[in-house]
Amino acid sequence: MSAAPAAAGCPAFDEAWFAARASRGVQGLKAYDPGHDLVALRRKFGEERLLELGSNENPYGPSTAARMAILDQMQSLHRYPDPLGLDLKRALATLHGVDTGAILLGNGSHELLMQLAQVFAGPGDEVVYSQYGFAVFALATQCAGASARVVPARTRDRADMPLGHDLDAIAAAITPATRLVYVANPNNPTGTWFGVDALDAFLAKVPPEVIVVFDEAYAEMAVAPDYASALGRLGRHGNLVVTRTFSKAYGLAGLRVGYLLAAPGLVAVMERVRESFNVNGPALAACEAALDDAAHLDSCVRRNAVERDALAQALQRRGLRVFPSQTNFLLVEFGPQTALIESALVAQGVVLRPMGGYGLPDCLRITVGTADENQRLLAALDALLDLSDA
Amino acid sequence: MSAAPAAAGCPAFDEAWFAARASRGVQGLKAYDPGHDLVALRRKFGEERLLELGSNENPYGPSTAARMAILDQMQSLHRYPDPLGLDLKRALATLHGVDTGAILLGNGSHELLMQLAQVFAGPGDEVVYSQYGFAVFALATQCAGASARVVPARTRDRADMPLGHDLDAIAAAITPATRLVYVANPNNPTGTWFGVDALDAFLAKVPPEVIVVFDEAYAEMAVAPDYASALGRLGRHGNLVVTRTFSKAYGLAGLRVGYLLAAPGLVAVMERVRESFNVNGPALAACEAALDDAAHLDSCVRRNAVERDALAQALQRRGLRVFPSQTNFLLVEFGPQTALIESALVAQGVVLRPMGGYGLPDCLRITVGTADENQRLLAALDALLDLSDA
Repeated sequence: MSAAPAAAGCPAFDEAWFAARASRGVQGLKAYDPGHDLVALRRKFGEERLLELGSNENPYGPSTAARMAILDQMQSLHRYPDPLGLDLKRALATLHGVDTGAILLGNGSHELLMQLAQVFAGPGDEVVYSQYGFAVFALATQCAGASARVVPARTRDRADMPLGHDLDAIAAAITPATRLVYVANPNNPTGTWFGVDALDAFLAKVPPEVIVVFDEAYAEMAVAPDYASALGRLGRHGNLVVTRTFSKAYGLAGLRVGYLLAAPGLVAVMERVRESFNVNGPALAACEAALDDAAHLDSCVRRNAVERDALAQALQRRGLRVFPSQTNFLLVEFGPQTALIESALVAQGVVLRPMGGYGLPDCLRITVGTADENQRLLAALDALLDLSDA
Repeated sequence: MSAAPAAAGCPAFDEAWFAARASRGVQGLKAYDPGHDLVALRRKFGEERLLELGSNENPYGPSTAARMAILDQMQSLHRYPDPLGLDLKRALATLHGVDTGAILLGNGSHELLMQLAQVFAGPGDEVVYSQYGFAVFALATQCAGASARVVPARTRDRADMPLGHDLDAIAAAITPATRLVYVANPNNPTGTWFGVDALDAFLAKVPPEVIVVFDEAYAEMAVAPDYASALGRLGRHGNLVVTRTFSKAYGLAGLRVGYLLAAPGLVAVMERVRESFNVNGPALAACEAALDDAAHLDSCVRRNAVERDALAQALQRRGLRVFPSQTNFLLVEFGPQTALIESALVAQGVVLRPMGGYGLPDCLRITVGTADENQRLLAALDALLDLSDA
């Protein structure tokens, strides 16, 4: 036993020293990149002037009922939240026609996606997901110390669903070492999706002992008839997991609530690692209230679909390539000047999401805003692209 | 590749099947027991009639400034919270006289205690903590797949600090396989504490390559001159971690915010596994505001100390053994009838915390309430204990 580390030869206690003592997965891990420092940008430009189209938030905000539910919580902030989250689970069970035992609540679906890998994949195991898949799939895999098999996406020159998941290739990448497959439908950051035939063909190829996670964060926004959620297949395939979130269509990104639906046996095992108060009190209450306001959700989804089409067409008229999307964002090809354009927009208070981290450095991801916000974006782009021609 | 699992011989997809596919640590894990279903009890008795003294919450509630800060968030619920939590970190850095880089925010200190083991301990590693230590220490160790060395606490017959940590024995239990030591000061569920001499003597014995986590969830409530936080030793020992929470003295258990202070190198490694939006928007804002209201904190701490002493004396006058406490709860010995007494109290709407799970089945943990709440508790006990004598 050595003495306190004041003497020479004591550990450096710097990041490298602590990283060397961390689990193998953490040693190679880089934290999730959440994009620009929006707090600083809001202070610089003022919240009214800053145009925030980088984080795929719902510009119409949540149901008023959700805000009222938070007000109801103001006298019980000193109380721990319900560790079971049973009221919210009951509302979700009714919505989706499942038992409450098939539902697990998370501090955002981010937490659930991380814990799925933590529980079911480790060193020596493989996790399969697509190129251009949600960044958290890679983080979760690495953090668990598992190996990633990243499957090339459909190429950009495909006429049908360019950059989308290649489900045949994903199924073919499964080996006896595969424990988990992450699939996003619709996918972030590409906006791409698939339908029921592709879903069923894929599921028929996945061995039942491999857990398949369908990240459906944007599902509520998908209105195309050729989109299919995996929810309808839960009863048929016990190895399915579907994750959903209140951060997108429900307009509650600030509260961090996601959930998953799966076989009750899987939920029971995941409950063992869930921190008992992982979803906070105001968040539980607000989400329950939000579920009760289907009209607001419908209105957000309809307005988003209208604005998405209008924005896509406006961008295409300007000669920009816009990838197909059933989400509340558009992936747009800006070419070799993308980084310059992005920086110039930020300097004017227009925040989009750079895609270099996703291997798409010539693209930007643009959240579909309100009609007014989209007009402001187009005006900024017009001014900039005219300038860049000069 | 087999087909869909509808055929005979397909997996059961029950808890046992999923558990068998989970990491070794999760296979043996049992979830944290949060106590009674308080939501159900509130509905049964009504919030006014139910006497909730089981969860060590602050009966005076948070600063009004915290509530106001949440109101300010009502128009930005659709925005993601600040992933850096920098405003709250700056306020904490000022409070504690450290750099913001020395602070990590958690979804409750529960999350941080879990992630410390996830990052720094794994299969083959050992984690040391005391008997009667906070339940999350055992959960975190098991979840990480590490081995626990549980050190016997001071015996109940000790005149000085019975049931407290035996720091000499904890230091002696450290082996070359030890990665992490959890120490709680004051400790939950015993209420016990130690001072600066014991702290320094302990730290002198811990090898610098072993990370020592001081869980100080109740530190603000400790007013005894012989209590010492480990915060004052952070600069001297790079292997120290101190966790704190807003759930207790700050009266914000409903919001789930904890933090740790440690060497910036440790924080940087932990940041890799932190989910970028782990603390939600209203919670960040409320905690920052709460820090600004030192007068409210002082008032809660003072009132708690007065009521704690009064309640302890009242219980002792009734012949009950009360263990020493510098927290907002008392551990009380009720003898062989403890389980019956506890059930009878719950049946009347008086919720205390059973201690069977902590290996103290003849004790109950009683949160120190307001003067009125404590009187109601004593009246209920008097009625019950008289009855049990009949």
